Amino acid sequence: MSEVAKPERVVTACLVIIGNEILSGRTRDANLPFLATELNRIGVRLMECRVVPDIESAIVETINEVRRKFDYVFTTGGIGPTHDDITADAIARAFGVGISEHPDAVDRLTRYYADPALFTPPRRRMARIPHGATLVDNPVSVAPGFRMENVFTFAGVPMIVEGMFHAMKHELVGGRPLLSRTIRCSQPEGFIAEKLGAVQQRHPDTEIGSYPAFRGGKPSVSLIIRGTDPARVQAAFDDLIGALIELNAEPEEIPVS
Amino acid sequence: MSEVAKPERVVTACLVIIGNEILSGRTRDANLPFLATELNRIGVRLMECRVVPDIESAIVETINEVRRKFDYVFTTGGIGPTHDDITADAIARAFGVGISEHPDAVDRLTRYYADPALFTPPRRRMARIPHGATLVDNPVSVAPGFRMENVFTFAGVPMIVEGMFHAMKHELVGGRPLLSRTIRCSQPEGFIAEKLGAVQQRHPDTEIGSYPAFRGGKPSVSLIIRGTDPARVQAAFDDLIGALIELNAEPEEIPVS
Repeated sequence: MSEVAKPERVVTACLVIIGNEILSGRTRDANLPFLATELNRIGVRLMECRVVPDIESAIVETINEVRRKFDYVFTTGGIGPTHDDITADAIARAFGVGISEHPDAVDRLTRYYADPALFTPPRRRMARIPHGATLVDNPVSVAPGFRMENVFTFAGVPMIVEGMFHAMKHELVGGRPLLSRTIRCSQPEGFIAEKLGAVQQRHPDTEIGSYPAFRGGKPSVSLIIRGTDPARVQAAFDDLIGALIELNAEPEEIPVS
Repeated sequence: MSEVAKPERVVTACLVIIGNEILSGRTRDANLPFLATELNRIGVRLMECRVVPDIESAIVETINEVRRKFDYVFTTGGIGPTHDDITADAIARAFGVGISEHPDAVDRLTRYYADPALFTPPRRRMARIPHGATLVDNPVSVAPGFRMENVFTFAGVPMIVEGMFHAMKHELVGGRPLLSRTIRCSQPEGFIAEKLGAVQQRHPDTEIGSYPAFRGGKPSVSLIIRGTDPARVQAAFDDLIGALIELNAEPEEIPVS
């Protein structure tokens, strides 16, 4: 007896990466792959990512667009002590609220920088939090992130993003995680595409992606089957393996690392 | 005698990365750093990047928003032979034009797949180009990209993106490239932030970014000065070096790799 599928609401998220260093090509972002993977584990699907410069109006406009469009929004970057750290002010402006020192944030930073000479005015700026926001713990370097309604503001340094995410993830309410199976095959996309499209049509509740690459100079293809229902993912997987064997495409499952 | 600065128009670009494999965290994008760096060389500034899923409506909406907002738009991904390659159709819909086989594209693919058995119907799909678009050469695997007004549509595989970009970059009209100088220092952000902010205020025509990182477990900072006028960048650089020496922050220029 197979279970009757209930109509499923997908819980969505958008990542907003704030930083000229990403847009200039100097720094390669590492937060998207981390957040995408971790969010999926708890049933939240990353549906869009935007990289925006350190310009307040650009951040405000983007935040106000995406916070209405997605269940959760995460921002990374721009909450440090320097003049180019403008994210907290931009979030306050996006929500039309004030911003000032949060007593609990001041407290945490005062304890961390035990010597008052080290607790410089720029470091004290990191205690400025938009009114109405709650703090997100920073287990790495103390200066907190914050949550404003459905928007979570994190630092940019990957180690801190990871710490903040694990500190707040219990606040997220997800749906069913997206399961995935990956098959690599030895025939190029143009050769398998017709049968692949037919498999996709027979399994509309799964989503089959085809990703070409060059391996040792030769074209190769990874096929990924994604879906929330284990039985349906398995059925699509079996069907696809059969189709690839027929095509002499030597299918091989790639285990999840 | 210093040259009188003319008001400068910044030529802008937006990158739209199309692909569930990026949003799922499976594949780490490599095209943004490449395009950002190459565009800057010819005086075009990447001002935003969006990563969107393989959903036609999401692509259409994004393209129609960004093509009006930026001088140039580049898309990567989704122009191969499989069922999940929907970018060409989405671009046609965004511009409200039809799409059909482009004779020159058919010609190129026919020559490339010399054996008619290899020129499968899915491969032939790669000759479908929105009406009114011009082709972008693909020196790697022949299937062309295309240009529709200010929107350039490339493949997703980095090797092909690089080939396509170099094949079409003469079509771009840029402004002055952004020059940059990088200084690494041994003091944390919170210690140098005040003097750094003062240097930024004294050099409003340059933009000074501060990027913390952990090097060998210790906080470290890279400072990047960016600007289009070599003399002004040099002046800000000298001023910042002086300020960092005063702070015993051991500034060291990091050469561009």
